[in-house]
Amino acid sequence: MTAPARSRRWTYSLAAEFGHKNITDDVARLVAESGVRLGAVVVSLAGSTGAITTIEYETGALADLRRALDQIAPPNENYAHNAAYNDGNGFSHVRSALLKTSVAIPVIDGKLQVGTWQQIVVINLDNRQREREVVGVVVGE
Amino acid sequence: MTAPARSRRWTYSLAAEFGHKNITDDVARLVAESGVRLGAVVVSLAGSTGAITTIEYETGALADLRRALDQIAPPNENYAHNAAYNDGNGFSHVRSALLKTSVAIPVIDGKLQVGTWQQIVVINLDNRQREREVVGVVVGE
Amino acid sequence: MTAPARSRRWTYSLAAEFGHKNITDDVARLVAESGVRLGAVVVSLAGSTGAITTIEYETGALADLRRALDQIAPPNENYAHNAAYNDGNGFSHVRSALLKTSVAIPVIDGKLQVGTWQQIVVINLDNRQREREVVGVVVGE
Repeated sequence: MTAPARSRRWTYSLAAEFGHKNITDDVARLVAESGVRLGAVVVSLAGSTGAITTIEYETGALADLRRALDQIAPPNENYAHNAAYNDGNGFSHVRSALLKTSVAIPVIDGKLQVGTWQQIVVINLDNRQREREVVGVVVGE
Repeated sequence: MTAPARSRRWTYSLAAEFGHKNITDDVARLVAESGVRLGAVVVSLAGSTGAITTIEYETGALADLRRALDQIAPPNENYAHNAAYNDGNGFSHVRSALLKTSVAIPVIDGKLQVGTWQQIVVINLDNRQREREVVGVVVGE
Repeated sequence: MTAPARSRRWTYSLAAEFGHKNITDDVARLVAESGVRLGAVVVSLAGSTGAITTIEYETGALADLRRALDQIAPPNENYAHNAAYNDGNGFSHVRSALLKTSVAIPVIDGKLQVGTWQQIVVINLDNRQREREVVGVVVGE
């Protein structure tokens, strides 16, 4: 008998600029398999041009979030990062640092504590298609 | 004798658009009651139209944050979410995804590690009054 | 023999308005010394005029983030906080509440789970030089 897995590594293939995926079910499955009844799950993207947040995962809200990011950090402004590296993803770095790359969500009675219309989403903010690596760890007992 | 509670569920009645409450004392009480000396507390709002963050909880700073959000995601723009659902809270979803719905705060020597002028705040970003459900879990030992 | 330290308190002397420091190595050292193989580290700034986030720690990306913050919350607008306290750091409070003051990062196989170009950064957003206190706690086993 082995101890139940408390961590998981996922890879998601996401489109450029705002490729997104609802990963709530993947995270809930990890929580269930971990056997943890009371604690929290930390979900984190490895990288500096993506984000993890929660949103009602429907086309409209996602488009609205993208438009807000287009205004906060437009793709085609003059970025100091682009001047140095010529990779054109200066806007991606700014968006990622603002949205941030991880969330911590409580687990109570073995259940992930999210609202009915609240989903955990991974977003690729880079200017090219990416295989984004996300890790989840459940802590508690 | 029962184990000390390590989780708590609170409901806060908050006004539309930017109803807020300082919940630092509630969280500190949970930390004290948990008996955890070294660890962290995760505080999370269940929902996609609210937020949890930290701020100096005074009228001016709160009004300034609200004004910044009014510029990032004005209530009366054309939101794709509103076009689909007709509920008028597209701006709420954008603000919630940007501010995010949870915080993790360290606990050292049994004390919540916040600064003197740093308070944990729950904000209702929806366009109607809401009973907002917040959960806290303490992990550690 | 004493138990390995699972928490650390650091003080960083940071310049006004956007003084920053890459603290990834400090956090990784805490994780290594803790002996925790599977869990998470919570890193948090005590205060309401600073932030903790992740970014590719290079001059360009940092300058770009600063410019985005200058647009979201310009230093010299009329802030209600400033009108009440006359300390001129209303913009600092807004930026801190938006960027937030803590991150939670998974630890797997004893290693901090960040990407190659992803660094943990502390930013002083206040309008004066500050000694910023940051705490880290490792939870897990």
